[in-house]
Amino acid sequence: MINQLHRLLEESFGEMVSIRRYLHQHPELSFKETKTAAYIADFYHQLGIEVHTGVGGNGVVAKISGLKPGKTVALRADFDALPIQDEKDVPYKSAVPGVMHACGHDGHTALLLMLARAFHELKDELEGEYVFIHQHAEEYAPGGAKPMIKDGCLDGVDAIFGTHLWATVPTGTIQYRFGPIMAAADRFEIQIQGRGGHGAQPHKTNDAIVTASQLVIALQQIVSRRVSPIDSAVVTVGSLVADNAFNIIADKAKLIGTVRTFKEDVQDFIESEIEKIVNGICMAAGCSYEYVYHRGYPAVVPHDDETKQVIQSARLVEEVTAIEETVPDMSGEDFAYYLQNVKGTFFFTGALAEGTEIIYPHHHPKFDIDEKAMLIAAKTLGTAAITYQKQDSESPAASTVVNEPTIN
Amino acid sequence: MINQLHRLLEESFGEMVSIRRYLHQHPELSFKETKTAAYIADFYHQLGIEVHTGVGGNGVVAKISGLKPGKTVALRADFDALPIQDEKDVPYKSAVPGVMHACGHDGHTALLLMLARAFHELKDELEGEYVFIHQHAEEYAPGGAKPMIKDGCLDGVDAIFGTHLWATVPTGTIQYRFGPIMAAADRFEIQIQGRGGHGAQPHKTNDAIVTASQLVIALQQIVSRRVSPIDSAVVTVGSLVADNAFNIIADKAKLIGTVRTFKEDVQDFIESEIEKIVNGICMAAGCSYEYVYHRGYPAVVPHDDETKQVIQSARLVEEVTAIEETVPDMSGEDFAYYLQNVKGTFFFTGALAEGTEIIYPHHHPKFDIDEKAMLIAAKTLGTAAITYQKQDSESPAASTVVNEPTIN
Amino acid sequence: MINQLHRLLEESFGEMVSIRRYLHQHPELSFKETKTAAYIADFYHQLGIEVHTGVGGNGVVAKISGLKPGKTVALRADFDALPIQDEKDVPYKSAVPGVMHACGHDGHTALLLMLARAFHELKDELEGEYVFIHQHAEEYAPGGAKPMIKDGCLDGVDAIFGTHLWATVPTGTIQYRFGPIMAAADRFEIQIQGRGGHGAQPHKTNDAIVTASQLVIALQQIVSRRVSPIDSAVVTVGSLVADNAFNIIADKAKLIGTVRTFKEDVQDFIESEIEKIVNGICMAAGCSYEYVYHRGYPAVVPHDDETKQVIQSARLVEEVTAIEETVPDMSGEDFAYYLQNVKGTFFFTGALAEGTEIIYPHHHPKFDIDEKAMLIAAKTLGTAAITYQKQDSESPAASTVVNEPTIN
Amino acid sequence: MINQLHRLLEESFGEMVSIRRYLHQHPELSFKETKTAAYIADFYHQLGIEVHTGVGGNGVVAKISGLKPGKTVALRADFDALPIQDEKDVPYKSAVPGVMHACGHDGHTALLLMLARAFHELKDELEGEYVFIHQHAEEYAPGGAKPMIKDGCLDGVDAIFGTHLWATVPTGTIQYRFGPIMAAADRFEIQIQGRGGHGAQPHKTNDAIVTASQLVIALQQIVSRRVSPIDSAVVTVGSLVADNAFNIIADKAKLIGTVRTFKEDVQDFIESEIEKIVNGICMAAGCSYEYVYHRGYPAVVPHDDETKQVIQSARLVEEVTAIEETVPDMSGEDFAYYLQNVKGTFFFTGALAEGTEIIYPHHHPKFDIDEKAMLIAAKTLGTAAITYQKQDSESPAASTVVNEPTIN
Repeated sequence: MINQLHRLLEESFGEMVSIRRYLHQHPELSFKETKTAAYIADFYHQLGIEVHTGVGGNGVVAKISGLKPGKTVALRADFDALPIQDEKDVPYKSAVPGVMHACGHDGHTALLLMLARAFHELKDELEGEYVFIHQHAEEYAPGGAKPMIKDGCLDGVDAIFGTHLWATVPTGTIQYRFGPIMAAADRFEIQIQGRGGHGAQPHKTNDAIVTASQLVIALQQIVSRRVSPIDSAVVTVGSLVADNAFNIIADKAKLIGTVRTFKEDVQDFIESEIEKIVNGICMAAGCSYEYVYHRGYPAVVPHDDETKQVIQSARLVEEVTAIEETVPDMSGEDFAYYLQNVKGTFFFTGALAEGTEIIYPHHHPKFDIDEKAMLIAAKTLGTAAITYQKQDSESPAASTVVNEPTIN
Repeated sequence: MINQLHRLLEESFGEMVSIRRYLHQHPELSFKETKTAAYIADFYHQLGIEVHTGVGGNGVVAKISGLKPGKTVALRADFDALPIQDEKDVPYKSAVPGVMHACGHDGHTALLLMLARAFHELKDELEGEYVFIHQHAEEYAPGGAKPMIKDGCLDGVDAIFGTHLWATVPTGTIQYRFGPIMAAADRFEIQIQGRGGHGAQPHKTNDAIVTASQLVIALQQIVSRRVSPIDSAVVTVGSLVADNAFNIIADKAKLIGTVRTFKEDVQDFIESEIEKIVNGICMAAGCSYEYVYHRGYPAVVPHDDETKQVIQSARLVEEVTAIEETVPDMSGEDFAYYLQNVKGTFFFTGALAEGTEIIYPHHHPKFDIDEKAMLIAAKTLGTAAITYQKQDSESPAASTVVNEPTIN
Repeated sequence: MINQLHRLLEESFGEMVSIRRYLHQHPELSFKETKTAAYIADFYHQLGIEVHTGVGGNGVVAKISGLKPGKTVALRADFDALPIQDEKDVPYKSAVPGVMHACGHDGHTALLLMLARAFHELKDELEGEYVFIHQHAEEYAPGGAKPMIKDGCLDGVDAIFGTHLWATVPTGTIQYRFGPIMAAADRFEIQIQGRGGHGAQPHKTNDAIVTASQLVIALQQIVSRRVSPIDSAVVTVGSLVADNAFNIIADKAKLIGTVRTFKEDVQDFIESEIEKIVNGICMAAGCSYEYVYHRGYPAVVPHDDETKQVIQSARLVEEVTAIEETVPDMSGEDFAYYLQNVKGTFFFTGALAEGTEIIYPHHHPKFDIDEKAMLIAAKTLGTAAITYQKQDSESPAASTVVNEPTIN
Repeated sequence: MINQLHRLLEESFGEMVSIRRYLHQHPELSFKETKTAAYIADFYHQLGIEVHTGVGGNGVVAKISGLKPGKTVALRADFDALPIQDEKDVPYKSAVPGVMHACGHDGHTALLLMLARAFHELKDELEGEYVFIHQHAEEYAPGGAKPMIKDGCLDGVDAIFGTHLWATVPTGTIQYRFGPIMAAADRFEIQIQGRGGHGAQPHKTNDAIVTASQLVIALQQIVSRRVSPIDSAVVTVGSLVADNAFNIIADKAKLIGTVRTFKEDVQDFIESEIEKIVNGICMAAGCSYEYVYHRGYPAVVPHDDETKQVIQSARLVEEVTAIEETVPDMSGEDFAYYLQNVKGTFFFTGALAEGTEIIYPHHHPKFDIDEKAMLIAAKTLGTAAITYQKQDSESPAASTVVNEPTIN
């Protein structure tokens, strides 16, 4: 049946590309992606597949039941675009000024639709149930995953699989990770309030620029001294503004930054440690402060068994030439929320065409994907979903990969 | 004759106030004060006094010769206003929106005109020559003093006297200083150029905010460690801007600040020391920089003999109740240039009415002066100019105080 | 044959304990362990096993050949002790004042001797050759491994296996790591040379304490900003001394510290980055410096295939209750050098008795091991050595797990 | 009578030199100067002058009454030496190993003894009373001045005069200062208590070296930002010690330093500001601290009228070639205490022989004075004491120096 699935997907590749290009030309911003949602829903309607719209916002959820009983497996694709002007010179260039699918969500959507259709065609032979989660608003916190989950999209789901087309990794490569694969990405703001005055009279002031500078320097100690060297963490002050005339002493300074972590205890620790440092520095300087810490998406932490499931599935995909563990990526993904609720995994599907000379990273105005990667992603996801039914529920991978080290 | 002068000035006080209030209602910004210049010139013309206009810009210079030979003494008043909205509730409030005599230059002008008229009346009894320098553009560097000097306003002048009505010191007080009385006020700009990037990837960047912060902190050492504790100096970073999104690492940061000094060697040293520090910090950080140091007005450094002259003159002024040495003021004045060219002094004439409850400092939208101070200033300046003729040309004070310590 | 080996080892356990306790009572410091070397050599002599002494110093190397041809596998145990006073209250307490086996090398030696004897007994059934490396001077850089290798102890060796009894991990647990398991541990010294002077005259000095302080703070950026957050690194200034009278400005300050890394490129980068920072800070401060960077042992980087070999071997050891990947340990081991020369791996054998209430870490005056761990270590090492003969020489693990991800 | 005094002093110059050289050969450390005290007392005894010994310790006080009534004027000389090895090659070199008159107190004593004898000879013509204070222990806080005052040495005294032979200023020069002439010299100690640990595990520690470094840097802001640029102040950390092995993280660091100020409010402010900064930095760093601030001698603040008295007196001294205002010296003197209790002044008497090529500063092992300076100092002090009787008690200088500016 895996072979059948793969063949069906191969046959649909042309349409997969068409859909992707259509979506590419008609991008919509996060939380405003109503037409895309309608397009997706319409696709399922026409096939007579059960589909729910307005799930947690613009989310769309379709369901296909195999004839035989089994587990419920969810597959997810996001479908929002970014506020970036498309600068590519291709026929399917964005038709919407200042909006662009610069992260590959168009491809995610196209491949999931084709995969759903293939499952629909195979449903008489399938065990279990399959949930196709088309998620809106991945790009913009607080994201669409959370409200979709709240609205029930994971109800009854045993496991979820997701992938991201990855334009900086060669097509043919599948990258997984045992352990966190994407970071928790938080934002903080610190407003230092000193006392301003004339540039010639520092003794009558509490200089907010000197205090802010001390703070930036002191914050370096969080990563260098306070977090375990084994744990990855980043504390970045990305913006520091105290905009005044040259002969003024600044009364206030505003710092904005980001924290990246993979573990919740490290994240909690850094959140409180920043305040400890801000508080001490401000106390020493006679300044007051406001400190706000906004939690972004948590780290994406795949479950090992489902990751192994994907590894085995990828081995069955003809076009896959490499399956490798990746270092984690410090960017964020609200797929994290699904993995906090059910078992599952998230992996990267290489989407960099051979021979590409200039690589444009995600969110770049000239970003594009190698469309062949969509087929690989669809095959891998689909295979994982189907073979998941065969797994021993306790320790599925153990039964097939006897000597695999990481299961001990 | 001193008594005569004083009586003439007392008689003119009403007109002095009228002129001052007229000017107060008709303020003009630096380098644009054409009507004020015309008003001043007209005053001299009507009295038949020799007057030169367009001196170094809008400057006006009048000259009165005594019947007897003697030295040439210059007296200076500035006449430009500031870009401040007058918020006082008085009949003579500024009639020009957004422009205001918020520093007392209207008073300076009025008192110098009345003083000139008194000298004109006394000219048959006067020795020497008197130059009345009405200077434009004191408030805005590079100022009017420099071009007026270049245009010859000090040619043949032996000494110059000037005062500033000082609204934060009680009327009746004359403040002098042996040594610098106002600071050199310079401006510097430092642009740090690092390498930007994603907030989660510090190792691929050279963080301009961290570098700028280190720099601000390191600059504190100039005053704390490198300048003699006996010398006064200020190094202020008044503005620090690296304005970015939270998840970005800043590629550049701009610092703007001011340096205040009283001695040229300290000023030179700080200018080069800043660069030494910027250079070292940037080298350590892998950043590059641009550093620009703009010299403002130099320090106002009175000459001791002429200061003593003023002290002795002030003692002869009935309304003077206190003559005291002041600590220097860290703000700037282009009177400095006159004192670099000829002997002379600059002093503060208290202009704070008794019983004033809220003191509005210079440049405040509610700034005003006690007009009685104009009379005191005029008497003191006039007396100094006349008695200067009597001084021993080598060392005037020496004649009366043979072994006076400060002349050693 | 594995079973035979295990049984032989079990039978020798009493003697293993005796030997260990004898050695524990007679510890010798690094590079001075002549009696221990003689003890070991004598053991082999008595059994008629080929033994080489004085290898690279006090090193002892024994060799046992199986009847059948095969690969050459080395097993290593270190045998030096530490300058620590034994504070345990046990019958086998150190008899040498101030010297103690506080790291378990006595156990390493005992178990390797018993393992060698078992191999000797089984030699008619064994394939290949076995090299028993008894290494002196692991505790004290530059260590014994390097000269022993230079002296040929690895000549002809195909693979090497080693373990460390690990007193903070429960007995029954084997800890391995794909990737570096122990850190490169380097030492650096920075001497800041400023210009001293009287505490009241900072402007005549270049303050070495202020400069050193700036440096300590700036060094934090190496880990916080310059090394990838994915890579582990530590830069510690452990000692900072500028010892003067209170009213002096320090002319010099000495900083000593350590750098810990797992990758050579990170190590190289930090070595040069420290100098870059020292140079920039000193340039800004008008100080000079001397910077010396001493490389300690490199990181211990196991080879994946041999690590898998150990994992598989450990599964065959009855007493093993857990086999798990560990986070790396930031301390150093000169086993690193063997792994730079031949394939092999290094793992931790848990040696913490169940129910232990107070855990004394390695190098503690009350350090002890659970002796049962010696048996587990011997079995695992022995099994790995024997089964290594069966491995496909190219990629042993590959033969059983065709598409195993980590081999891609 | 001034002339008589001067002639008597000139006649005694040979003996003055002899006494000074005798004392130079027999120096005694602070609080241990019993033989010197006896020598002084003996001198007075032999002349039949009233002398009190054991005043506030080793202090000696002699009193001479003029025949006519008048004010009581005190003159002070200190007589302790320093723990320095004399490295001069002169016949009168110190005979006591490791102890030396390296600050000129021997000269102070010799000149005061000769001055006392001259007064004794002139006593029939003198008005008023004269108190000759020979003070022990000036070099070592808490000093001898305080206990001598407590013991009554200033009882009934109207004014006190003192001088310091100043080996870096040419002989013939008298230096005075209106305003503080020597600084308050305080000492502080800060002990940072963090939590130590292994150099590879910063996250388990609170690094005392990083915290101490931050503190040193933050303390720079006291002078650069918090004290008025018009006020002189120094905050120096002279010693920073955290002495450990390279692979340790420091649990504690000790900082010792000095604060120099001229005003008590600035001194108070800095004392509390240091703690404010230490507290904030330690709070941010999770460290605790101990902070001790020891007040040294206060600033030496001459009274203006008595300073003028000295200026006028110096003018009457033939050998005086220059009388000049000096910048303040940042070192300390317990003469400060006398001036807190009675009116008086303190000045520097140049003691650098013409043509000296290498100038050795005070406290240098090769320090010496130009002995001619003793005569100048004696004449100036004596003249000031005698002419003080003639002063108008309200404002003595005013009567003679009518136009002197600084009296306003």
